[in-house]
Amino acid sequence: MGGTIAGVIDRLSSLFVRTLREDPADAEVASHRLLVRAGYIRRQAPGIFAWLPLGLRVKNKVETIIREEMARAGAQEMSFPGLLPAETYEATGRLNDFGDSMFRLEDRKGAPMVLAPTHEEAFTVVVKDLYSSYKDLPLTIYQIQDKFRDEARPRAGLLRGRQFTMKDAYSFDVDDEGLAESYQRQRDAYERIFQRLGLEYVIVDAQAGAMGGSKSEEFLHATEVGEDTFVQSPGGYAANVEAYVSTQAPARDFSADAAIETFRTPGSTTIATLVDAANREVPRERPWAAVDTLKHVVLAVVDHEGNREVIVVGVEGDRDADLGRIEAAFTPREVEMATEEDLKAYPQLVPGYIGPWLDGRQVLGKDQEWGIPYYLDARIGEGSTWISGANAADTHLHSLVIGRDVVPDARIEAADVRDGDPAPDGSGPVTTKRGTEIGHVFQLGRKYAEALDLRVLDKNGKLVVVTMGSYGIGVTRDLALVAEQNHDDRGLIWPEAVAPYDVHVIATGKGEVPLQVAEQLAAEAEAAGLEVLLDDRPKESPGVKFGDAELIGVPWILIAGRNAADGTVELWNRRTNERNQVAVTEAVAALLAAREVSLEAAGK
Amino acid sequence: MGGTIAGVIDRLSSLFVRTLREDPADAEVASHRLLVRAGYIRRQAPGIFAWLPLGLRVKNKVETIIREEMARAGAQEMSFPGLLPAETYEATGRLNDFGDSMFRLEDRKGAPMVLAPTHEEAFTVVVKDLYSSYKDLPLTIYQIQDKFRDEARPRAGLLRGRQFTMKDAYSFDVDDEGLAESYQRQRDAYERIFQRLGLEYVIVDAQAGAMGGSKSEEFLHATEVGEDTFVQSPGGYAANVEAYVSTQAPARDFSADAAIETFRTPGSTTIATLVDAANREVPRERPWAAVDTLKHVVLAVVDHEGNREVIVVGVEGDRDADLGRIEAAFTPREVEMATEEDLKAYPQLVPGYIGPWLDGRQVLGKDQEWGIPYYLDARIGEGSTWISGANAADTHLHSLVIGRDVVPDARIEAADVRDGDPAPDGSGPVTTKRGTEIGHVFQLGRKYAEALDLRVLDKNGKLVVVTMGSYGIGVTRDLALVAEQNHDDRGLIWPEAVAPYDVHVIATGKGEVPLQVAEQLAAEAEAAGLEVLLDDRPKESPGVKFGDAELIGVPWILIAGRNAADGTVELWNRRTNERNQVAVTEAVAALLAAREVSLEAAGK
Repeated sequence: MGGTIAGVIDRLSSLFVRTLREDPADAEVASHRLLVRAGYIRRQAPGIFAWLPLGLRVKNKVETIIREEMARAGAQEMSFPGLLPAETYEATGRLNDFGDSMFRLEDRKGAPMVLAPTHEEAFTVVVKDLYSSYKDLPLTIYQIQDKFRDEARPRAGLLRGRQFTMKDAYSFDVDDEGLAESYQRQRDAYERIFQRLGLEYVIVDAQAGAMGGSKSEEFLHATEVGEDTFVQSPGGYAANVEAYVSTQAPARDFSADAAIETFRTPGSTTIATLVDAANREVPRERPWAAVDTLKHVVLAVVDHEGNREVIVVGVEGDRDADLGRIEAAFTPREVEMATEEDLKAYPQLVPGYIGPWLDGRQVLGKDQEWGIPYYLDARIGEGSTWISGANAADTHLHSLVIGRDVVPDARIEAADVRDGDPAPDGSGPVTTKRGTEIGHVFQLGRKYAEALDLRVLDKNGKLVVVTMGSYGIGVTRDLALVAEQNHDDRGLIWPEAVAPYDVHVIATGKGEVPLQVAEQLAAEAEAAGLEVLLDDRPKESPGVKFGDAELIGVPWILIAGRNAADGTVELWNRRTNERNQVAVTEAVAALLAAREVSLEAAGK
Repeated sequence: MGGTIAGVIDRLSSLFVRTLREDPADAEVASHRLLVRAGYIRRQAPGIFAWLPLGLRVKNKVETIIREEMARAGAQEMSFPGLLPAETYEATGRLNDFGDSMFRLEDRKGAPMVLAPTHEEAFTVVVKDLYSSYKDLPLTIYQIQDKFRDEARPRAGLLRGRQFTMKDAYSFDVDDEGLAESYQRQRDAYERIFQRLGLEYVIVDAQAGAMGGSKSEEFLHATEVGEDTFVQSPGGYAANVEAYVSTQAPARDFSADAAIETFRTPGSTTIATLVDAANREVPRERPWAAVDTLKHVVLAVVDHEGNREVIVVGVEGDRDADLGRIEAAFTPREVEMATEEDLKAYPQLVPGYIGPWLDGRQVLGKDQEWGIPYYLDARIGEGSTWISGANAADTHLHSLVIGRDVVPDARIEAADVRDGDPAPDGSGPVTTKRGTEIGHVFQLGRKYAEALDLRVLDKNGKLVVVTMGSYGIGVTRDLALVAEQNHDDRGLIWPEAVAPYDVHVIATGKGEVPLQVAEQLAAEAEAAGLEVLLDDRPKESPGVKFGDAELIGVPWILIAGRNAADGTVELWNRRTNERNQVAVTEAVAALLAAREVSLEAAGK
């Protein structure tokens, strides 16, 4: 709920805040550093923070913007508990899928419970309990509430936390057209929310990850501190790097190709030395290059119970295998490099000399002699010809033809994506960028409704499975990214929409006049509906007060200083650092006018 | 944060709510039954509920009232996570004190974590981190946030839950006078909050329980569904029954008393048969009565690790031992009846014939022969003389004189409290009542600050330990009690201050006119700043619509029915059940006027 909070004066002499001179030891990113130093948050455990009064004010404003846009999109607010019975997640298999990232516990009676990382199941069940007809739909319901995920590497302050605030919405429709509309309404709301937060974003195609389902887009905020990589083309294509679809090389006629031949490659366990050996041993007109080689990596696909399946993946020798992209093909299982332990079970795999072929036959592949699943990167075309390891020390082979000599179990997106790779929609070469997910819209389809038997009667009186969408915004992460995007080396610079206060009034200098004038300005600003932070501390120096104001980052600062006695104060724009002398009598009007210009610029 | 939410129209045709005809199977109390049936909450697990849109609206209003009064009392809002490292509770010993009622878990690295049942430690530490001088104090900070307690018997819907919303405030002062003032400010705020919620309350002296500390008062709401018992005197004394202080009988001169004599009491293992046996075996002028006998109970005092200390407690034979009152003397240890296992270690205790004296000497008592701690009820005076068990089958003794023959280890409040018992302040006889705690104010003193080393420099530059108070309100419990106090057999009847909507507009009857009029009334009410629930469902019968309105319990209902075409609608007061015909053109004005009268009556 909420709405704007008007007419507040808080005083720094009593506000529960202390700015810190030192950066927190574990702070890796500016938002973490500044939010702690300026007294917005305090760490309680890795990835777990308390919200001090300043921080809570900003958090409430972010939440209010989200609530307003959810209401505008017709979504209704409700609220689920964070502590839920484990069985809620059992029917959909997610109790397992979430693995170690789910906090688990037992109650005093031994009943298994979890701290909810997300609430698809609970929302599905409540709709099943209350609704029964197509006439009840469409429905979009949401909550803003703390989620729990036991991240392996909580990092970067609020950017990847273990308890964090999220808005999660869920739509329920009777058919695909309805879902598409509900999805679009949330997607539009997200655009408005991020615009109001002043958060730049790119909408990218996304992998579903542990959520399962169909269409999925992420709102990414481009930032160097991001954990995600995404690609963009000049023609408008954008995708999470895990969702980037590479282009398979056109099929090649191999009817005239020579047969496989092995050649000696002593010590050639890297692509560079292999290429040298090939040029030495198997000279040809155009010299061999990395792009002619097929590089094989041995990986383990691990399920939630720790069961490991060893696989071999082949990618072009001039590229690296990208585990994140490969993992997307095996979700919810995880993919990691094979360990020595894994390799012990397959002594036939000779490190540095691995390949799919040996002595006239294909040996890699689920149904082949060695029984090891064999995948090729999706770029590799039919009829393409390769240098590959020959499964013997110091030996490789050439003229290995895909489709003639070997057939992979499947092609998967396995190689890394690089600047210049083609966008799959023909919109030009992509460039890769770092970013962080700030929102996610997702057509779940019927996965959850089927697993939990959410069906309604359609127009013809027939029971049909409901189709769902889920829509998440990381409230506290997005707040941190606003801070990340709006700061300088002296502190935070909040956009008006989420600033903890509208104006920071500073009384500084000798005598009683500056404080009197500051009090008067604060009262006037409050009467004008503004939220005022008043620095009325009697003993702090001007330097300390200005430094704190810069650190705290309220966008507008009014200084009642030594000229206050002459009827003049200073209006300071924290963002541009402009300072203008204004008459005391005009100060609040000048502030309101300047603020209006700034708000309009932000709203454009 | 928040503030009032004005100008809303929600439509029953799309609002996520379904009223239920059947009571939930596990509902013991009216609030639970009605909040579920009317679509405010849904059970997720024992003592764990989800909030549907209607419920969340009421919850937000309760929270807004609390926030407004906290702000008025100068308390600042912040917010701690619910998931905390167990070590937070280690230094104060509460990791143990909370025992099984604390949800415990380990994170993926094996670090012990808990779900916070209350946050004294975390608040103490954050103040220690930020503040260092008496000039920083006083400070009162609070949060409204979900707490977790693994109750042995979650019951009565929201009245005793395992995840529930609480407002917890903590005050920090440099000296006792400051604490007394901070305490009074919160106490005053609590009175205003409960008045605004329309919740009747009694302020009683309270035991501290697991919190430790000094002065403590509970705000109790008298209700038959309450779990607490409290006593009140006509002169204004009020106390939690655990805190009631009984009056010790005046000392008696026993210099002329006869010596102890045993007598035969075969099969007299109850007070009634014992009294009969005494009158048969030891006749005297005034017949023996229950009040002449000393009844002994064997109890086990159990610590968090399950260590059991067996004790014997003596109470007057006409009263029962009250385990709740006895437990208060041993907090945080718990008290229960001794088991057969416990008794095996003490074969000298003969059930039905237990007493402190045997063969010319005292045997019960920490330093006596049997080494079993021995306590007497606080009412029992020095020199009083008793019939008691003689520690042999079929044998009792009389003329046991307290202070001559036996000395207890201590006197404790052990016997039950009854109507007619004297108030300790001389304000007359008490009566006992059932109630539920709706708020708790508590002078913690220096317990937490000492344990966590929260010290500040005082005026003389000396480090002094800070003194603290803690102040809790069970937000969701209090919401349930408002429902408990405001309902009839047809449904809820919300007070204006927390009603989910200000007015429920019903369109009913044939043709388009009723809906048109209802829409018009809703729009007018919205324009007047009211929150409107509009029943625009096209197919429901008038009976269903009226029944739903009564169940949902919005205090004012406007019905646009068959007379709407003639320009007349009905204004229905849900509480008094009065229905008045009003002209459509006057309807919203009439509603506003009637509502004003009701608000004024509530605010008196």
